[in-house]
Amino acid sequence: MFMKEDLFIDLIKNSLPESSHFIGDDTAYVHKKDLILTQDTLIEDIHFRKSTISPYYLGRKAIAVNLSDIAAAGGEPSYALISLSMPEDIDENFIEEFYRGVNDISSEYGILVVGGDLTRAFQITISVCILGFGNGLIPANRRNAKVGDYVIVTGNFGSSRAGLEILENNMPEVPEKIREKFIQAHINPVPRIKEGRIILRAAKKPALMDASDGLADALSKICFFSNLAMAIDFDDIPYDKDLSLIAEDETRLFKWILFGGEDYELVGTVSEKAYKKLIDSGVFIKKIGTVVPAEDAPYPYIKYKEKMVKIDSEMMKTEIFGHFKE
Amino acid sequence: MFMKEDLFIDLIKNSLPESSHFIGDDTAYVHKKDLILTQDTLIEDIHFRKSTISPYYLGRKAIAVNLSDIAAAGGEPSYALISLSMPEDIDENFIEEFYRGVNDISSEYGILVVGGDLTRAFQITISVCILGFGNGLIPANRRNAKVGDYVIVTGNFGSSRAGLEILENNMPEVPEKIREKFIQAHINPVPRIKEGRIILRAAKKPALMDASDGLADALSKICFFSNLAMAIDFDDIPYDKDLSLIAEDETRLFKWILFGGEDYELVGTVSEKAYKKLIDSGVFIKKIGTVVPAEDAPYPYIKYKEKMVKIDSEMMKTEIFGHFKE
Repeated sequence: MFMKEDLFIDLIKNSLPESSHFIGDDTAYVHKKDLILTQDTLIEDIHFRKSTISPYYLGRKAIAVNLSDIAAAGGEPSYALISLSMPEDIDENFIEEFYRGVNDISSEYGILVVGGDLTRAFQITISVCILGFGNGLIPANRRNAKVGDYVIVTGNFGSSRAGLEILENNMPEVPEKIREKFIQAHINPVPRIKEGRIILRAAKKPALMDASDGLADALSKICFFSNLAMAIDFDDIPYDKDLSLIAEDETRLFKWILFGGEDYELVGTVSEKAYKKLIDSGVFIKKIGTVVPAEDAPYPYIKYKEKMVKIDSEMMKTEIFGHFKE
Repeated sequence: MFMKEDLFIDLIKNSLPESSHFIGDDTAYVHKKDLILTQDTLIEDIHFRKSTISPYYLGRKAIAVNLSDIAAAGGEPSYALISLSMPEDIDENFIEEFYRGVNDISSEYGILVVGGDLTRAFQITISVCILGFGNGLIPANRRNAKVGDYVIVTGNFGSSRAGLEILENNMPEVPEKIREKFIQAHINPVPRIKEGRIILRAAKKPALMDASDGLADALSKICFFSNLAMAIDFDDIPYDKDLSLIAEDETRLFKWILFGGEDYELVGTVSEKAYKKLIDSGVFIKKIGTVVPAEDAPYPYIKYKEKMVKIDSEMMKTEIFGHFKE
């Protein structure tokens, strides 16, 4: 993500007029119309494998990853378009199950699938566009962090990566209940719509992102776009107590929590005052660090085993699970 | 298009709630918010080949085909999201040229690219979502045809197919100027935004579609969705006088005009009164036939060389250029 994709985003920004200033964000906010827009594409054997996710959960997840972007804006989602492209030999059961998943999650989040496109492809390719509304609040973005803000998250990290590990390597020695918990985290992520809205209401102008590309990626991007640094305490990052059963050693545990990706938790920064409101709000919100001035460069620092680990672009290049990873 | 796609659309309709009633249309209209939404996906080696379209024209066309859907609703386009997925070895020049095309056509039509997504794929995959507005008028659809309405079109048919023929088979014997004209028709289609708006203003409730999948397909769909038939005179269908130079024989000429596809002209039905207004409107609008009651089944009939050719589902199956053609 931080490699060629950034270069490409710069190329795109240079090709489009100034007013297309949302390029590089995960959502666009059309102020005049109070619209929040997001679009994400999932491609077979790049973003998912048929062997590790059923059509039902694929339908749910295609919607969920886009809802997560609306959540990170603090918006309320309303309408979805789904462009589904498939090989000619796809069976009807795939389509029925896929749309059963789409329908279930759409009902749960009160959104309406209003259209899309159906075409042929070599791999299953799903492009979803979701429209939401600010409904009286200005959406959050990744530029809003301020020195002294608390860095907060909405849930556990590393669980999705652990689920993928179980799906790929079976791990029959792990108890069934624990296996299932991590598999669900991977195939059935929960978009944090309610949490995003609560954070936006409490904090007015929070920095907010989802951790779709990993916690370290979200922290790095907020630092970069806000031109500030962060002091994060690894011991404060929430993760499932059974994670070490799957990760097996401490280095993997550390990497999965920071770089595992696909956890779809929100990561943001809010004032101390807003944080106090949030801990009484009834949703899970946890402080993991503080925003500090960017002395040398705008990077997050993670306190881990009495050392400060600097998450700089070199480290991101080596570790991140990115679509353009080299 | 008329084969497996229809089956799949039925499956999808059955999977989603009643309120998702736009599934099967090319655009969705969100009445409460006056929004018109459309999404189309183009995939390398299915919808285009790198050997026959440059990145610049691919950028233009990806936007144009979606603008054409907004035109067929009679809407005014405003915002675009572009999800671009590419192989890892794509060069920067491709992206720069692609977005130069996107930017040019976006300026020409006054739309703003507000976001999207960039990811890896095995083939170049472009999914565009465009948002438009009714701006005081209820959008057109394919259900509005009435007995006695005139069937109208906004331009020539067969030109795009002729351009593809030249691109694929070179045809050096055809004069350069003529070659270039048909190639432009194929790689640089003109979305009929202005025409769509004028038709909607003049006719209030016209039936309207774009002929992206061919003139016969558009006529058939309006007949089917309006449960009416049409009497079309082949001699009234506009086509470029040089088309026969490329098609070479009369059967191919007939097929290209009716089933060639990708002409992106509008096809619709309006009252005689509205038609009279339209011929004075300053845009090209031509009557090609009349809406008649569906005596046996809702099909268009084309008068061709003193015979009436019935465009039924059997004929569509054999002839249509469809993404799910078997």
